[in-house]
Amino acid sequence: MTLQARLAQNNFVVLGRAGMDLYADPPGTEIEHATHYFTSLGGSSANICVAICKQGGQSSLVTRVSDDAIGRYCLNQLDHYGVNRSHVHTQDGEFRNSLAVVETRLENCQSVIYRNGAADFQMTVEDVEAIDYSSYAALITTGTVLASEPSRKAAFRAFELAKAAGLPLIFDVDYRPYSWVSAEDAAQTYSKAAEMCDIIIGNDVEFGFMSGDYTTGFKKAHELAKTSASIVVYKKGEMGAITITPNEEIKTGIYPVTALKPTGAGDSFMGGFIASLANGFDLKESILRGSACASIVVAKVGCAPAMPTVEELETFMSSHAGVTIPE
Amino acid sequence: MTLQARLAQNNFVVLGRAGMDLYADPPGTEIEHATHYFTSLGGSSANICVAICKQGGQSSLVTRVSDDAIGRYCLNQLDHYGVNRSHVHTQDGEFRNSLAVVETRLENCQSVIYRNGAADFQMTVEDVEAIDYSSYAALITTGTVLASEPSRKAAFRAFELAKAAGLPLIFDVDYRPYSWVSAEDAAQTYSKAAEMCDIIIGNDVEFGFMSGDYTTGFKKAHELAKTSASIVVYKKGEMGAITITPNEEIKTGIYPVTALKPTGAGDSFMGGFIASLANGFDLKESILRGSACASIVVAKVGCAPAMPTVEELETFMSSHAGVTIPE
Amino acid sequence: MTLQARLAQNNFVVLGRAGMDLYADPPGTEIEHATHYFTSLGGSSANICVAICKQGGQSSLVTRVSDDAIGRYCLNQLDHYGVNRSHVHTQDGEFRNSLAVVETRLENCQSVIYRNGAADFQMTVEDVEAIDYSSYAALITTGTVLASEPSRKAAFRAFELAKAAGLPLIFDVDYRPYSWVSAEDAAQTYSKAAEMCDIIIGNDVEFGFMSGDYTTGFKKAHELAKTSASIVVYKKGEMGAITITPNEEIKTGIYPVTALKPTGAGDSFMGGFIASLANGFDLKESILRGSACASIVVAKVGCAPAMPTVEELETFMSSHAGVTIPE
Amino acid sequence: MTLQARLAQNNFVVLGRAGMDLYADPPGTEIEHATHYFTSLGGSSANICVAICKQGGQSSLVTRVSDDAIGRYCLNQLDHYGVNRSHVHTQDGEFRNSLAVVETRLENCQSVIYRNGAADFQMTVEDVEAIDYSSYAALITTGTVLASEPSRKAAFRAFELAKAAGLPLIFDVDYRPYSWVSAEDAAQTYSKAAEMCDIIIGNDVEFGFMSGDYTTGFKKAHELAKTSASIVVYKKGEMGAITITPNEEIKTGIYPVTALKPTGAGDSFMGGFIASLANGFDLKESILRGSACASIVVAKVGCAPAMPTVEELETFMSSHAGVTIPE
Repeated sequence: MTLQARLAQNNFVVLGRAGMDLYADPPGTEIEHATHYFTSLGGSSANICVAICKQGGQSSLVTRVSDDAIGRYCLNQLDHYGVNRSHVHTQDGEFRNSLAVVETRLENCQSVIYRNGAADFQMTVEDVEAIDYSSYAALITTGTVLASEPSRKAAFRAFELAKAAGLPLIFDVDYRPYSWVSAEDAAQTYSKAAEMCDIIIGNDVEFGFMSGDYTTGFKKAHELAKTSASIVVYKKGEMGAITITPNEEIKTGIYPVTALKPTGAGDSFMGGFIASLANGFDLKESILRGSACASIVVAKVGCAPAMPTVEELETFMSSHAGVTIPE
Repeated sequence: MTLQARLAQNNFVVLGRAGMDLYADPPGTEIEHATHYFTSLGGSSANICVAICKQGGQSSLVTRVSDDAIGRYCLNQLDHYGVNRSHVHTQDGEFRNSLAVVETRLENCQSVIYRNGAADFQMTVEDVEAIDYSSYAALITTGTVLASEPSRKAAFRAFELAKAAGLPLIFDVDYRPYSWVSAEDAAQTYSKAAEMCDIIIGNDVEFGFMSGDYTTGFKKAHELAKTSASIVVYKKGEMGAITITPNEEIKTGIYPVTALKPTGAGDSFMGGFIASLANGFDLKESILRGSACASIVVAKVGCAPAMPTVEELETFMSSHAGVTIPE
Repeated sequence: MTLQARLAQNNFVVLGRAGMDLYADPPGTEIEHATHYFTSLGGSSANICVAICKQGGQSSLVTRVSDDAIGRYCLNQLDHYGVNRSHVHTQDGEFRNSLAVVETRLENCQSVIYRNGAADFQMTVEDVEAIDYSSYAALITTGTVLASEPSRKAAFRAFELAKAAGLPLIFDVDYRPYSWVSAEDAAQTYSKAAEMCDIIIGNDVEFGFMSGDYTTGFKKAHELAKTSASIVVYKKGEMGAITITPNEEIKTGIYPVTALKPTGAGDSFMGGFIASLANGFDLKESILRGSACASIVVAKVGCAPAMPTVEELETFMSSHAGVTIPE
Repeated sequence: MTLQARLAQNNFVVLGRAGMDLYADPPGTEIEHATHYFTSLGGSSANICVAICKQGGQSSLVTRVSDDAIGRYCLNQLDHYGVNRSHVHTQDGEFRNSLAVVETRLENCQSVIYRNGAADFQMTVEDVEAIDYSSYAALITTGTVLASEPSRKAAFRAFELAKAAGLPLIFDVDYRPYSWVSAEDAAQTYSKAAEMCDIIIGNDVEFGFMSGDYTTGFKKAHELAKTSASIVVYKKGEMGAITITPNEEIKTGIYPVTALKPTGAGDSFMGGFIASLANGFDLKESILRGSACASIVVAKVGCAPAMPTVEELETFMSSHAGVTIPE
């Protein structure tokens, strides 16, 4: 079965965290001066799950949430968006659920993320061994699960089991320095993970980080596409993306919008890209649709609630001036 | 003194209403399902005053607010933005301050405006006779003050007094059917007002309405420019604007953005356009700057708080893809 | 059938308004300085309907709401609380739904109520003639429906029809000066209505107002009980209430609490009192339960959402220090 | 100088944390279902500082806040309430500021507190050695600073330095199990701290905990008053408090109110009690005023913003039914 035929099963098992995002309200307000907040579901993996469900696919999150009201909030929200949570376990003790206090601002946008003693890092090998991988189209992982133990060990075990079941592995580098003990550890672990994966998505900084130097990141992306991966997406922010396969290199621009905030673009891109491959679009179309999803999300408030449906995505693409010409 | 030399005094007396806007929160929420709101100063004339102050000019609002907590809220907000309120009177009795319950949504955006028994319609001839017009650069009026008595009579009296003091009259048609007894009355009154003014701003629907037929609106705009007005701006929404003077016709496009809501564009255009003329930009530049102000406001939440400073306006114009080509 | 046997049917048809209440948030904030609000269903008759439903009874509201998003908000909220709205009609045109901007403060608590051109005053004789009164336990009316036409005429027609169907009429005086053309008109209309009713609830000021002088209000209450009414409740705020029947006079105290706001007490008292009579409690017990409901509501935020269930009411009564001794 | 003469200097140095409290909004909402929050300054020591300032005294907080927007929020809030923050340091790295997600509910009131890797535990011996203790009336400490190093060592160093400068030590046990490695460690550390202090405030559970058994807690309180402390306040929740000195035992009741939430009572009691001693009230009066402060705070929303001024406290005490009779 080809990669795309497999993805067409359109149900994904996703490793990573769910959290609560608190947005300083009204939009534009700085945290220092905020008196009010509104919340939405957050966490990159939960966001990707939501993006897939909104595009008509199915997703199942694998993580741990805290055994308290914030953890229950996350469970309620996953239900709200239709994300399967049969592999979400609650973690008791003094672990806390990931929580982000964020702003809706474009310049100097601040976010304060609470990840010390985070419940999701308590995901175990047993958690991931309880999953029947053969029933899914692919395994999606965001890099944050690799930052700490026992979550890291569990993630690599999930990679093995998924591979053994014939699943493509999809990896979003999503490097967040604050969760890692050292940059060296992060670079080595990311490289090890990337070499196991079939589809790898990262930005210029992240590939540079993996290769040890910003200037050699694009070379690293190329090597991965040449040796192990089927698709490597090298994102360059407002300058678009270069998608590398063993056979070709596709340059794409972005859909320019007036962004309200920088956050949510990566999760929305990933969700929209994978959902589009699953829905039968070709590689270039899927990249453009992922880019459109990213633009839609940064021009709205919130992340999970801003993820577009297929209909909203198509309205945006048809009414919008169109992508920029990539450099 | 030329029109622009006069405007360069950069202090404007503005007739019209101040109100309280209540935005369903978080953005995207429909009023039917909203549990929370946040507020900002509203009312087209108050918004124009704010836009001028944010661009470095001075503005003085002439209106009546209710003698209650909502009226006092408006006064507090005018102070907050630096708008002079020495000509804002409080109106007692069962009159209520204008109030708008609105949404931050692009499609099917709803707003419910409370204008029955509105305090601002109680503006009197005495109110406007107490003003020393000679100390201002120009008189700005939005059409809503003409919808009811005694406000209408007071507005026409202010026109006479301002004209006698040598002030240019600037008129924003801003037609809102709900405040008028009949469309005929509105059409006649608007035409009478427009014929007295030097700068007239309206959209295709509004000029069509004044001329009695949508198809003859552009002809009406031309006639006004030929007979009485110095500058007529005929706005066509996303298709840009045509600015008509006795000597020329300037077509301009818009700055495309991902709008969050349709509201606030007109007030922001007016404020940005007049402030730019006052700041010494030529007519075409001023129209483009007004258009940029409109785009900035529709891509943010709120109206008054979204009005740009000169610095924000210039950052937007320099970083933005640029105006569309007008048709 | 005795009055109480009739009430035991426990389904009430209630004339009067539903509105949207906007509470300055967080509690304690003054409207002048508020940046945020939260909403709940408001309007005295809607509140009484909610109180009855929360106590296990059924209620059906008879009113008109505006044909806009605020009107639809009210319909959604009535559904949320289980209030029947088959007799709630939408009113188009420039009528607006009743809306109240309020504070959660005890001292100098402000509220600004938008009732100019209110949709609920458009209730017609046809609206009330479409109701099958025989299927209800009683007709409840709050005084506000009498303030304007055609609502007043419709209310008196409903009185006739309900009486003809053998229904007891229950009347909450609830005098709000701002809605009335004159105090004389109000006094006459209230007196006329009160003379038709079986259960009349008002406070010392309201009975004084009906009798033309504060000092003769208690006499007025007595006369009503002697001539036409079965039960007259003369409320004295923190000093408790005197309930007058043809045979007896019952003095009751209040349940002292730390109030957060003065509003909602009257609607909660009415709902709790009538629901308790319907649930089989005797007259004195029902008055005390109504008083407890009033205390519960003033010590919480909001009105409709603060109305207690039977279980919450009983927890409060059993755990609370008890009523004051009436003077 | 007597203890009370010293306290009359009315400026206090307070060890402990400042945090951000997020209240699910509107009041009554559970975290699981909340969509909105509002914030106020939190952290027991910050709350005590605010209580003292509101009562007319001066307070200076000694702690560390995170070097991010949440830390800056805390600094802004301390300024807002007039709390001196010259001894508040910012802590960089991956430490996070204490943050609490809480509810305004009486039954089953939930709070989720983020204290993993908390910045305030990074308070050092250097931080406390930089303080000129001789300029203060007393040192106030809440037990939480003892839960972790280096904060614990710093606190004991502050005890030594304050004692050497002749300052009375005031200690609020305030035991929160989640921050401690083990109950044994907590019990020993609390006992060691309590033995150094002049005024000790705790509840029945906390004294029981220190003595190793709930039934011997009151004996423990007595022993402390007999051997080392001047005043020991043994709080019994709704049953009042027993205040023990070497010479007497004072039983006091509470001011019954309809509480909205259980939180904030302890901080408000401490602040009101100490401020009243400083303001010249005798011991029993000061206890009663502290109790009244506690009742005021639990009947309102928020903690820091709910702390009463002297005027509000006296209005409450004069208008309120009065304290219960202690058992």
